[in-house]
Amino acid sequence: MPASIGTASALRTGYSTGELTTVEVADQVLAGLAGRAGDAVWISTVPAEHLRARAAELHRRRTELAALPLYGVPFAVKDNIDFAGLPTTAGCPEFAYLPERTAPVVSRLLDAGAMLVGKTNLDQFATGLTGARSPYGAVESVFGGGLVAGGSSSGSAVAVAAGLVSFALGTDTAGSGRVPAAYNGIVGLKPTRGLLSVAGVVPACRSLDCVSIFTRTVDDAATVFQVAAAVHPDDPWSRALPVERTVGRAPSTLRLGVPRTEDLDFFGDLGQRDRFAAGQERLAGLVDATEPVGLQPLFEAGDLLYQGPWVAERLADLDDFLRRRPDAVLPVTRKVLEGGREYTAADVFRARHRLQELRAWAERLWRRIDVLVVPTIGTTFTLAEIEEDPIGRNTVLGRYTQFANLLDLAAVTVPNGFTESGRPASLTLVGPAFGDTTLVRLAAALTGEHVGPAGAAPTPPGGDLVPGGDLVPGGDLVPDGDLVPDGDPDGDGRVLLAVVGRHLRGESRNAELVERGATLAGIGRTAPLYRLYRLPSDDGIGLPSLVRVGADRGAAIEIELWRLPVDTIGGLLTGIPAPLSFGWLRLHDGREVLGFLAEAYAAEVAAAEDITAAGGWRAYRQAARTG
Amino acid sequence: MPASIGTASALRTGYSTGELTTVEVADQVLAGLAGRAGDAVWISTVPAEHLRARAAELHRRRTELAALPLYGVPFAVKDNIDFAGLPTTAGCPEFAYLPERTAPVVSRLLDAGAMLVGKTNLDQFATGLTGARSPYGAVESVFGGGLVAGGSSSGSAVAVAAGLVSFALGTDTAGSGRVPAAYNGIVGLKPTRGLLSVAGVVPACRSLDCVSIFTRTVDDAATVFQVAAAVHPDDPWSRALPVERTVGRAPSTLRLGVPRTEDLDFFGDLGQRDRFAAGQERLAGLVDATEPVGLQPLFEAGDLLYQGPWVAERLADLDDFLRRRPDAVLPVTRKVLEGGREYTAADVFRARHRLQELRAWAERLWRRIDVLVVPTIGTTFTLAEIEEDPIGRNTVLGRYTQFANLLDLAAVTVPNGFTESGRPASLTLVGPAFGDTTLVRLAAALTGEHVGPAGAAPTPPGGDLVPGGDLVPGGDLVPDGDLVPDGDPDGDGRVLLAVVGRHLRGESRNAELVERGATLAGIGRTAPLYRLYRLPSDDGIGLPSLVRVGADRGAAIEIELWRLPVDTIGGLLTGIPAPLSFGWLRLHDGREVLGFLAEAYAAEVAAAEDITAAGGWRAYRQAARTG
Repeated sequence: MPASIGTASALRTGYSTGELTTVEVADQVLAGLAGRAGDAVWISTVPAEHLRARAAELHRRRTELAALPLYGVPFAVKDNIDFAGLPTTAGCPEFAYLPERTAPVVSRLLDAGAMLVGKTNLDQFATGLTGARSPYGAVESVFGGGLVAGGSSSGSAVAVAAGLVSFALGTDTAGSGRVPAAYNGIVGLKPTRGLLSVAGVVPACRSLDCVSIFTRTVDDAATVFQVAAAVHPDDPWSRALPVERTVGRAPSTLRLGVPRTEDLDFFGDLGQRDRFAAGQERLAGLVDATEPVGLQPLFEAGDLLYQGPWVAERLADLDDFLRRRPDAVLPVTRKVLEGGREYTAADVFRARHRLQELRAWAERLWRRIDVLVVPTIGTTFTLAEIEEDPIGRNTVLGRYTQFANLLDLAAVTVPNGFTESGRPASLTLVGPAFGDTTLVRLAAALTGEHVGPAGAAPTPPGGDLVPGGDLVPGGDLVPDGDLVPDGDPDGDGRVLLAVVGRHLRGESRNAELVERGATLAGIGRTAPLYRLYRLPSDDGIGLPSLVRVGADRGAAIEIELWRLPVDTIGGLLTGIPAPLSFGWLRLHDGREVLGFLAEAYAAEVAAAEDITAAGGWRAYRQAARTG
Repeated sequence: MPASIGTASALRTGYSTGELTTVEVADQVLAGLAGRAGDAVWISTVPAEHLRARAAELHRRRTELAALPLYGVPFAVKDNIDFAGLPTTAGCPEFAYLPERTAPVVSRLLDAGAMLVGKTNLDQFATGLTGARSPYGAVESVFGGGLVAGGSSSGSAVAVAAGLVSFALGTDTAGSGRVPAAYNGIVGLKPTRGLLSVAGVVPACRSLDCVSIFTRTVDDAATVFQVAAAVHPDDPWSRALPVERTVGRAPSTLRLGVPRTEDLDFFGDLGQRDRFAAGQERLAGLVDATEPVGLQPLFEAGDLLYQGPWVAERLADLDDFLRRRPDAVLPVTRKVLEGGREYTAADVFRARHRLQELRAWAERLWRRIDVLVVPTIGTTFTLAEIEEDPIGRNTVLGRYTQFANLLDLAAVTVPNGFTESGRPASLTLVGPAFGDTTLVRLAAALTGEHVGPAGAAPTPPGGDLVPGGDLVPGGDLVPDGDLVPDGDPDGDGRVLLAVVGRHLRGESRNAELVERGATLAGIGRTAPLYRLYRLPSDDGIGLPSLVRVGADRGAAIEIELWRLPVDTIGGLLTGIPAPLSFGWLRLHDGREVLGFLAEAYAAEVAAAEDITAAGGWRAYRQAARTG
């Protein structure tokens, strides 16, 4: 059996050390495809010579590795997402068309250096959660034994789980990005609706559809998310992630909602019940607090999707095709879609009004908790079991997933071991819209991965850092490769702030930065123009005060650079006492950044102590402790 | 004919000077009702003895005037809004019920001291824009001549226009809060959907319904809005006005969208055409810039309401009643409502998908302009004309109003004079959701009223201001009665910032404050601890720099106090150059506030000029100009 393709982060390491080339990886991918030829994972693949040409092109551009976050990473795309060059079938050969344009979300991945391998099988028209509703064949779970792959993004999940690619795109309306992740022991990120554009995606329920991400690690999911998420002007459903939400909250600060036991139904599957209890307990150890949550309003919302008038939203786009080519649609899919004809316009509005009440319930819920954990699926089914009751068992599979998009939630599915009978277990972290990065950080803590506050592993340092040879960098330093000297260099609403005293890492007021979403962007020192004073403070620690005195009397003082949202600066400022102020600091390399300063009268305050000779507040404090 | 009841602000002046009492005003109200007895304005009124008792109670509480923003102000409520004590009919006697609870939005007005007079007539089930669709009689415009009052809030508009009350609540789904304002020459504020709770309001289209405000002045509308707007926990459609939007933008900073001529249809009414052109021209003189806007996407969105599947939303709540009591519903209303039965569930979703595209168009529009002006109605109709074609002419009346709630917009309707044939003209300012206060400020500028940045007239100054006897206060000073020395005294997300130089009123960078929603909160001077330097600047004006030097060398320097959102401080800070900084300034009265400072090395910058002797930047500049 061919070797599994590495994760995106492993490939990146291999490429950067020169141990791997894109050409070698493309060959591994092709060997993997050949090794599974004839199964139902793919509907179409990029011709081998095209994949090799793409790999060769990337190899020629290998010096661009640093600028291409998905350089040489092979991926698959669910076959309801357009790629110009392969047909889009949506799991229905008679529906197929050859798209002229690649979906923008796929273009972003390609522009970031990823290599497309092919289009994957799915439940027809993304309608279903089993992986068994496709004329291209039922997809089997990577774990075999007749277990279905879960759907509708069946092929994408198996392509990732089997190591044929590093990641894959799916779509998720009722749970299609989560259920197959559960069946195949991988990570499924269902972003907040709108963050990944659905332009160029065959609609299921337009108002609910999401593009989703399958990976083998949480870190990879976060990396793909960061590349893929972008507003697209042609997509009216497209939404931007607010700047302040690009950084997730630390797991230790979170309140976790845990389902009331009486609301949990594992449909008799005690192995799944035990696995969920164990996963929930591990999660509880990572967060600040847990709180029991009743799930009935979630179930009621979820039932609107397949057991309510939202079925008619699927029909809104497919009715013409269904009337013209009823023979082209699988009987089970046709039955589901035609159910939408039973609802009146008034039914839709009545359901919408009830949904609004449930959304208001959810809003109140997110004031009590930050994240909710649920099983991804209550139990697993074999293909034979699905065939016994294709619609009823589909409903079982959607129990814990269907509500998410109706209630405008984000979700991350992570593997949760195996039951004693060897079935994969999985849990899903659910949060409010735009909580994606917080979910990702908690998911990473659960899987034991190390990721930064934006969810992904920190990018390796660039060449122009200012590490300050005489300073000891912290253990979890997140250096920033491209510091520039103005207020908001990236136009992303974040600014650099030079910190000199009690807001340094490990010091008493550092939390004020962290809780505002600040991230450490580097360490260094000022230009030799400053003196550092220690003023008396009520708590005895003292108030470090940096005063610019000029080149004749000044010295270089240790600073840390933190990057934080510009709109949090005011709040931070109101929390510091006179004579401290915020102004422009000159750094050792000539740059000018915002930072903590003090008015010059600080030097004349009674009992002010000139501690410039220590070189910085941290060094002064260490000397004071040991001295 | 009895005297017209004063506006809320006029009554307030009368009460505070002692020229008026609530008991006298209640008697005036009762005389006014008697003077119009038998017309169709009211469906029910509060018994005279109850109104007198309420007035007497308020008179006993007259020392609470300052705490009750609507003390003794008589008002009316459209009869689809609950008041415990009078039946709610929604314009249909067979539908009527006696509510147990008063609608929260009405309770807020009563809690603020207002006096409820009665419940007003309306187009049945708030379905219609004519004022002629009520079994309680067609309501005639206050201007008579057989002109309809407009609907559906017909009685509320006439009650205000005729001076029977100071203000009234209406509702507005398709234009019911704007069309009757136009027909009666008054102000109609249709707030952003959700800001005024619809709990206790008979639904028309739940997802679109708004409670609206009728007044005779823009200032009154803003006062009522400030009292009435509040999130209600039982109302799932309820939304909060973001703190930073409680202050409107100054008219002079706005980009005004004006309709392309070819999109304007006055249905042959050249008088209305001329009035609109004149109104638009006056508006253009108040704003920063105008930009032509095509209205077709607005019309397309609006047509979804009565000519599309949203009719079924009305049916969603009324279908049961309609089937049980078809005889109880007016034929025209029944015809409209039953039209909702023609749409399928899939039709609703298809329309919803198209609406999403139109919403995306509107989002792009609000990046180009801040406010759009449209005629409120293209032409006016008499009752006889409405009866000729009740549905067709209703559609004409909704042309410029129907789109607003579907596209989640706010709107303010203001009188715009009369045509040569004596018909009232009106225009409507439209803005994005939460733009209410900006619309109100522009509306006030158009009507020539003086209002503060929150839209309403400023509260009279308190006693502890720091006017600084040697300083000349500005003409439009908005004093702040309760300055306190911490960062966010009111916990409202706003802080005081002391300004010393180019951010003073009339100086070159003052706009940076104003555009961030800053309001002038007072003028004064620093403690005598500072020196003011003028540093050279590229533009020749110079950079005023305030340095704390201590009591031995310092002087008191003129400052202005501005109140602005704390989250805008960071952006302001990134815009100022070194050696300026933000820190804590000591004022002459001992308080400490955030403010502009400079690092002490400013004094040593080449060509720095000590201008302390001038007493402040403005005085220095004046001397420089005259000297």
